[in-house]
Amino acid sequence: MQFEQLPSRLLENAVSELAKLPGVGRKTALRLALHLLRQDRSLSMALGESIIKMREEITYCKVCNNISDTEVCSICANPSRRHNTICVVEDIRDLLAIERTGQYHGVYHILNGLISPLDGIGIEDIHIAGLVERIENQEIKEIILALAATVEGDTTAFYIYRNLGKEHIEFSTISRGISIGDDLEYIDEITLGRSISDRIPYHEQVKAH
Amino acid sequence: MQFEQLPSRLLENAVSELAKLPGVGRKTALRLALHLLRQDRSLSMALGESIIKMREEITYCKVCNNISDTEVCSICANPSRRHNTICVVEDIRDLLAIERTGQYHGVYHILNGLISPLDGIGIEDIHIAGLVERIENQEIKEIILALAATVEGDTTAFYIYRNLGKEHIEFSTISRGISIGDDLEYIDEITLGRSISDRIPYHEQVKAH
Repeated sequence: MQFEQLPSRLLENAVSELAKLPGVGRKTALRLALHLLRQDRSLSMALGESIIKMREEITYCKVCNNISDTEVCSICANPSRRHNTICVVEDIRDLLAIERTGQYHGVYHILNGLISPLDGIGIEDIHIAGLVERIENQEIKEIILALAATVEGDTTAFYIYRNLGKEHIEFSTISRGISIGDDLEYIDEITLGRSISDRIPYHEQVKAH
Repeated sequence: MQFEQLPSRLLENAVSELAKLPGVGRKTALRLALHLLRQDRSLSMALGESIIKMREEITYCKVCNNISDTEVCSICANPSRRHNTICVVEDIRDLLAIERTGQYHGVYHILNGLISPLDGIGIEDIHIAGLVERIENQEIKEIILALAATVEGDTTAFYIYRNLGKEHIEFSTISRGISIGDDLEYIDEITLGRSISDRIPYHEQVKAH
C-alpha cells in the first residue's frame, strides 16, 4: 500500500517513527502525531523527553536483570524472599503478573527476550549469561521456567534446561492447562491435550485446597 | 483500578506519558515502553527526538493553516486551484481524505479542532479568525463545510454559517451520505467524492430541520 506524502517533513518524520511501534499503523501514527501537535506543548515535550531519558539512563538490577533505579532491585534486596529459588521470566510484565498472584516467594531472573531464530534472536541476545553466573556462584535449589507457551518460550526453556542443568537443581515449568472459568470446547487442542497428559491426581488437588 | 508501582521511576515516567496518548491504556503503554527499551537505542532516540522536533519547529500555512514546511502550502500556492472556493475541514487528515477523491479543485481552511463546549473548546481555540480574515479580504464565492457528522461538527458548521455568512457567499455542506457519528478519514473514496459533488446549499439544510 502506498501512502500520500504529508505536507511537512517534520510531521512525516514523527509519523514514520510512531508507525514503527508495535501495533501502530500509519493511520494511527498520524492520529497520534496530530494529537501531539494539538494538545498542550508541555505534554508532548514531556512524552518525547521521558522516552529519551528512559533510554539513556535506565539501569538494571545487577543480580536478576530487573529494571531498577538501585543497583540491586527491591526483590533481590529483600531478605525474606527465598534466594535459592529462581523464577525465569521473559520480561518485567511477567514478573509483575506473578507478583500480583502473591503465590511466589522466591526471586527472579529476567531474560529480556526469548530465543527466536526466525527473528534473529539468539542466545547471546538475551540475558542468559547472568543466569549461568548465578547458578555457578550461588546455592540454587530450584529453577522455575515461567516462559510463554509458544515455540520461542519452549525453545528457550529447553535450552536452559539442557545447558544449565545441574544434578542438585530441580527444574520445573509453570503448569499448562485450562484457565479458571474457561469452557472446554473453546480450548485449543494442544492446551487441552497437554492438560490431559499432565493431569493431577484428584486427591492431591483436594488436599491442596 | 489501582496500578502496582513499577520498579523504576524512569520507566514509570515513560509509561505514564505514553498512557496519555488517545487509545493507549496503561498495559499497552508498558508494552510500548519495554519495546523502546529492547529495540536498538538509535530507534528509540529517533522517536523521542522526532516528537520534540515536530512540536518545536512545525509551521503552518499562513493562508489556510495547513501544516506546511513553507510559508504558503503547496495547495494555496497552486495557481490551477480555484481560490474562490474554500473547503473548511477539522484537520489535515480530512484534507488528505478529500484530496484522495480527486473531486475537489478549490482550496482549504483547516480549523484544527471543532467547537466542543463539553471539552472546553470554544471559538477562540480553533482557527476561525483566519477564516474571517479570508472572507473579508479575498473574493470568496463558495464555502463548503466538510465537517464530521457529529454534534461538534454541526455546532461548528452552524456557528460559521451564522456569523461569517455574507450575501454573496454560497454556503454548502458535503451531503450526508456519511453516516452519523463517522469520521471523514475512514469513509471510502467513492462515498466521500460523491458527497462533495452532491453538496447541499447550507440555507436549504437549515430550512429543512
